[in-house]
Amino acid sequence: MKQYLKHHEWHIIEEGLDPHTNKISESVFSIGNGRMGQRANFEEEYTGETLRGSYVAGVYYPDKTRVGWWKNGYPEYFAKVLNAPDWIGIHVRIDDQKLDLAKCKVEDFKRVLDMKAGLLMRSFAATLPDGKKVRVESKRFCSMARGEVGAIRYSITPLNFSSKGTLSIFVNADVVNKDSNYDEKFWEEIYKEGSEGIAIVTAQTKKTFFHVTTGMRYVILSDGKKIKPERINIEQREKFSGNIVQLNLEEGKELVVYKYAAILSSENHPKEKLVENCRKVLDEAFDAGFETLFAEHEKVWAHKWEECDITIDGDVAAQQGIRFNIFQLSQTYTGEDERLNIGPKGFTGEKYGGSTYWDTEAYCIPFYLGTAEQKVARNLLIYRYKHLPKAIENARKLGFKDGAAFYPFVTMNGEECHNEWEITFEEIHRTSAMAYAIRDYIDYTGDSHYLAEFGLEVLIGISRFWAQRVNWSSDKNKYVILGVTGPNEYENNVNNNWYTNYLGVWTLKYTQQAIDYVKKEDPKRFSEIVEKTKLNEKEETANWKEIATKMYFPEDEKRGVFLQQDGFLDKELLRVTELKPEDRPINQKWSWDRILRSCFIKQADVLQGLYLFEDDFEQESIRKNFDFYEPMTVHESSLSPCVHAILASKLGYKERAYEFYLRTARLDLDDYNNDTEEGCHITSMAGTWMSVVKGFGGMRVKEGKLHFNPFIPDKWKSYSFRLEFRNRVIKLTVTKDSCETILESGEPMEIVLKDEVKELK
Amino acid sequence: MKQYLKHHEWHIIEEGLDPHTNKISESVFSIGNGRMGQRANFEEEYTGETLRGSYVAGVYYPDKTRVGWWKNGYPEYFAKVLNAPDWIGIHVRIDDQKLDLAKCKVEDFKRVLDMKAGLLMRSFAATLPDGKKVRVESKRFCSMARGEVGAIRYSITPLNFSSKGTLSIFVNADVVNKDSNYDEKFWEEIYKEGSEGIAIVTAQTKKTFFHVTTGMRYVILSDGKKIKPERINIEQREKFSGNIVQLNLEEGKELVVYKYAAILSSENHPKEKLVENCRKVLDEAFDAGFETLFAEHEKVWAHKWEECDITIDGDVAAQQGIRFNIFQLSQTYTGEDERLNIGPKGFTGEKYGGSTYWDTEAYCIPFYLGTAEQKVARNLLIYRYKHLPKAIENARKLGFKDGAAFYPFVTMNGEECHNEWEITFEEIHRTSAMAYAIRDYIDYTGDSHYLAEFGLEVLIGISRFWAQRVNWSSDKNKYVILGVTGPNEYENNVNNNWYTNYLGVWTLKYTQQAIDYVKKEDPKRFSEIVEKTKLNEKEETANWKEIATKMYFPEDEKRGVFLQQDGFLDKELLRVTELKPEDRPINQKWSWDRILRSCFIKQADVLQGLYLFEDDFEQESIRKNFDFYEPMTVHESSLSPCVHAILASKLGYKERAYEFYLRTARLDLDDYNNDTEEGCHITSMAGTWMSVVKGFGGMRVKEGKLHFNPFIPDKWKSYSFRLEFRNRVIKLTVTKDSCETILESGEPMEIVLKDEVKELK
Repeated sequence: MKQYLKHHEWHIIEEGLDPHTNKISESVFSIGNGRMGQRANFEEEYTGETLRGSYVAGVYYPDKTRVGWWKNGYPEYFAKVLNAPDWIGIHVRIDDQKLDLAKCKVEDFKRVLDMKAGLLMRSFAATLPDGKKVRVESKRFCSMARGEVGAIRYSITPLNFSSKGTLSIFVNADVVNKDSNYDEKFWEEIYKEGSEGIAIVTAQTKKTFFHVTTGMRYVILSDGKKIKPERINIEQREKFSGNIVQLNLEEGKELVVYKYAAILSSENHPKEKLVENCRKVLDEAFDAGFETLFAEHEKVWAHKWEECDITIDGDVAAQQGIRFNIFQLSQTYTGEDERLNIGPKGFTGEKYGGSTYWDTEAYCIPFYLGTAEQKVARNLLIYRYKHLPKAIENARKLGFKDGAAFYPFVTMNGEECHNEWEITFEEIHRTSAMAYAIRDYIDYTGDSHYLAEFGLEVLIGISRFWAQRVNWSSDKNKYVILGVTGPNEYENNVNNNWYTNYLGVWTLKYTQQAIDYVKKEDPKRFSEIVEKTKLNEKEETANWKEIATKMYFPEDEKRGVFLQQDGFLDKELLRVTELKPEDRPINQKWSWDRILRSCFIKQADVLQGLYLFEDDFEQESIRKNFDFYEPMTVHESSLSPCVHAILASKLGYKERAYEFYLRTARLDLDDYNNDTEEGCHITSMAGTWMSVVKGFGGMRVKEGKLHFNPFIPDKWKSYSFRLEFRNRVIKLTVTKDSCETILESGEPMEIVLKDEVKELK
Repeated sequence: MKQYLKHHEWHIIEEGLDPHTNKISESVFSIGNGRMGQRANFEEEYTGETLRGSYVAGVYYPDKTRVGWWKNGYPEYFAKVLNAPDWIGIHVRIDDQKLDLAKCKVEDFKRVLDMKAGLLMRSFAATLPDGKKVRVESKRFCSMARGEVGAIRYSITPLNFSSKGTLSIFVNADVVNKDSNYDEKFWEEIYKEGSEGIAIVTAQTKKTFFHVTTGMRYVILSDGKKIKPERINIEQREKFSGNIVQLNLEEGKELVVYKYAAILSSENHPKEKLVENCRKVLDEAFDAGFETLFAEHEKVWAHKWEECDITIDGDVAAQQGIRFNIFQLSQTYTGEDERLNIGPKGFTGEKYGGSTYWDTEAYCIPFYLGTAEQKVARNLLIYRYKHLPKAIENARKLGFKDGAAFYPFVTMNGEECHNEWEITFEEIHRTSAMAYAIRDYIDYTGDSHYLAEFGLEVLIGISRFWAQRVNWSSDKNKYVILGVTGPNEYENNVNNNWYTNYLGVWTLKYTQQAIDYVKKEDPKRFSEIVEKTKLNEKEETANWKEIATKMYFPEDEKRGVFLQQDGFLDKELLRVTELKPEDRPINQKWSWDRILRSCFIKQADVLQGLYLFEDDFEQESIRKNFDFYEPMTVHESSLSPCVHAILASKLGYKERAYEFYLRTARLDLDDYNNDTEEGCHITSMAGTWMSVVKGFGGMRVKEGKLHFNPFIPDKWKSYSFRLEFRNRVIKLTVTKDSCETILESGEPMEIVLKDEVKELK
């Protein structure tokens, strides 16, 4: 945990350059626009600790997998979103000395992320080894209005000298992934050009053959007027194109470089048009100019904030935390492209390969449902619909048949990428996360027609998986599910994980409901689906019903709790508070076997089920389970605290709920888990949002109606959030002694506030 | 399965060169002498499929480990016995054409391994691309009499031409391991020399800094007379030294090259003396000459066969099979050096890194006890005694304390090398294999004093491990052992594996006995041990007793079987015969999760326990367990059939016993598992021997007496084996209707033959 960032309602502020926290800041201050993202690396060269990262959505590489002992069924590769060509580079030399903050005396260093405007700012005064002192200010953003445009304003002011300066302004595809398994470079040059004021490079990924064309234009101003450099040299190397600009630097006089970049990928343009279209995008951005581009960009952000801001009065740290989470989520995924999804680190680092996990369905969909147009969550569902054939193929590889669908644990294009047998093959609950998300979406939006369009096919595939994955235990006279890993990954290869069994049964039942619904509402489409999926309705659904009826669920009647898995009570049941500080986090201190046989829980497991299916259980049962499991939970997954915050809120454990909220809201800002330098925990940020909305706000949707059951943490004076709900915008404001709901737009509606129906107009 | 080798009582014979089986033959025809080993690679160049392998005992490299997802506690490296410098090379050119059997027409190819004499022979006629035809014969052996000497007789006869020929005769340390994790070369040159008739290279392993000096001298004869070559060039490259010899080849005239090699390692010589000593060994071998060296070597083999031959009359395939097993075991480990051990592939391939597994204790020790002097098995025990500090360190790394000893699953120097959490951390039964071997050794030899000398310290360390590894289950009101992998590796991370629990409890009890014994027989030494181990006798042994008394063992009373682990009966209990042929072997056809949740068993697990502790159980109980588990056993470990052969024999299932015997005896000769090309299954060969001696022969040692309860497989006319037993040699001969026991040497003794005591004189 590190607390070096200043608290501020709208800004993230770092003062002073500490080489040891630079990589953390590079993650935290990342900017993006859904199409691309950029870590907060410096424009100028930096030989200190840095993880340079620029990412283009959807552009990945199937890196040959690295594994100790191969297991049958492992995928050959791990797809990772690539570190993409560098568009920010502006290297500065003054009299043949490089401006490199690792080698200068740096004063007044300040890095600011203006979340309201989506603007990264940086300024400092640097004294070079020979005593020359310059002031630099930079601003940059990835345009939310033009998804392929990035813009930089970079200014240099000599403070105590006049001399010659050189700027190298370039685009560079000669970049590496730090997590490359075999130290390969993944980009090959296809095309480059460079002339005065412009440079373009098209690079191609090996194997996947994505093309990315990165172009830049720039202009240099002094006193607001474009200047003519002394000399411009064209600089070209493999995969690199730029200009070297020689300038006279005059003491006290600010030189301003505006650099405009266009980043186009073959995902959105025909390969043969990329260069031409890049020029066009680039010219348009150049002609518009920095201020106009920024104004457009800021406007989009203003609109976004209107939709999804959460205000907290009386707690600046909490306010900053929640806004940071919303900011990062909003710039990671905009929902416009159904081929894209949300990597656990978004565009802020390489870890987890930028691939898609069940985090999307379990955590992100509720956020986008509540804060964005319906199509955003819908596109996330369609992403999985499009992967259905691959999920069926994935199941087939593992011995399943007849259209059973097993969604991958990690994927880029629908194929499995993960290589730990205990997760890849056994963390099977994730395949039903896709089913749950369909219900979640329909419950929230009322868009039941989604079932006929896409949902039912997915549900049938997943139900078939469960029907084949269970087996009959003659010993128990019940169906059982053996050899699984539940959401708590600190248990592997267990039998009858309660959550997994419950989710499996729920899926079978929900699929039956979906069949009934589509059959009735859209019989023609139902026939098509039956034909396409070769559904033997009678036999298959009878079998599903049989399994659902006779499934085994481990429980301890004495304690009134569901058992996480068979044999859980054989463990030594300790509380986390009994752990010595030097043993924590256990995933860094203990060997794996010790973790596995301990009772300690990484993240909500039984409780995850109680959270998802709360209406199936008595409050008292939820309380007993919470009281039993939470004290054993180490919350070493970033996805853990939010579920506990919501349940604690529900149970009236207000202080606990607030504690859990704090853990999740400032996870990256305060580097709680000592890993933010690898990237921010983007998907868990949706959980933070849920902690407030579903936790403190007590928001639920029941039978098409919004319910609220809010309370306010002691430390706060008030808080408010808006929800998008069925073409309406509802704002909830909670103070110490009041609770206000306003319909900001849309048709009148009924809501249920603290169990009372209320008409909103 | 491939059956291309000819059946013969003493020889392994391959006729005709099939490029597709060459690597299999290279494994099968391997030769060695305990100090070094050599695959049956060709002396001349070969560009076809080959795995070149030469190994020097104890010379290993800690190759940086390759693992997908790192787990806390994993070792940094996997130690592997290195492919050592090539000493066999004789490259042949005729008029600038290489003799390369991949590029010639090859006739009359024959490869013969004379197991009686330990001699590898090869002969062929090769037609070169230009039509020149030569006959080549080679013989080679690794001297059993001089452990650092290899000798080759290599002859060339031009069949249809006279011309110029060139021989490159060399030693070469520029070799690679195919299984190198990062394609590194592991050898560096330290020294080389080369002059007419001699070449020496000293190479050093990276990181471990072993030095190996490999020298060679040669002489060329024609008509029995040494000839003077036309010209000799000295050929030197990095890590390579040799002579290029130009000769006149005369049609029909045989040229014979005798090449003598000396291979010395810094394990046995001071580094600074290596070259000098190498010259000495080399000169002595050279002076002795091929025939003398061979005579000495043959004599050692003759003596070995006298000790450990098993004859089978009426079944040549079975006879060849058992001899092949005994031959390979005898040339892999001679028991003279307590620093050495037995890799699963011996010196016949790279797989398993030439490291030590529990195979040694569970399978090999009984073989060496029965066939070699007492010191051989004793040295194998001392090997583990010497590793005790590392076993304690290994336990400490995993969170154990106070001198608990956890022996590694794979090791070269006592440190763990393995990197699969489910085995490395959880296949814990292996640590008690070390304890069982102590009992096995003492039972067989009567050398109880071993306890005081070495055994007790090891037992205390292992018992401490168990005492910390169990936990109290309040639910069961018993001690339990959670999160283990039993001998059946087709189950991972199970609770209460019956075998593991049983072995743990047995260890605790046996350690108590050992303490009582040493305390009484050697109180002074006992005090030393108490001091050294800081044993708190009273408290610790009381705790051990408590655990042993209150351990939980899963069983199914209805079926009368012990349960392999908790929850076993939840599985779908199928028989192997119900598997489709295309599903087998399941470890190649099924994904890991499917294997894990199936009932199918890789190798004896409960049955392994019943085999080791048969006297603790009623015959009827053993039968019920055998009848329950064996039909679910796929025997996909080479270590499986032998245990089943022994139990089937005991239960009177004679035909089954013979089937199991056949599976193990000809495993490599017939390439049953399609993997012999990677090396022979050396450690399982000891199981083959046990199948005959403990299975068919019914040999047991009870209270210091040898028991036999023999039967003869239907197909056999007779069989016989000898046993070394407490300074005596006993020979058992079994025919269809008789059973003869002869004391071949040593003091008179009593044996028990078919439950009747018999005096042998």
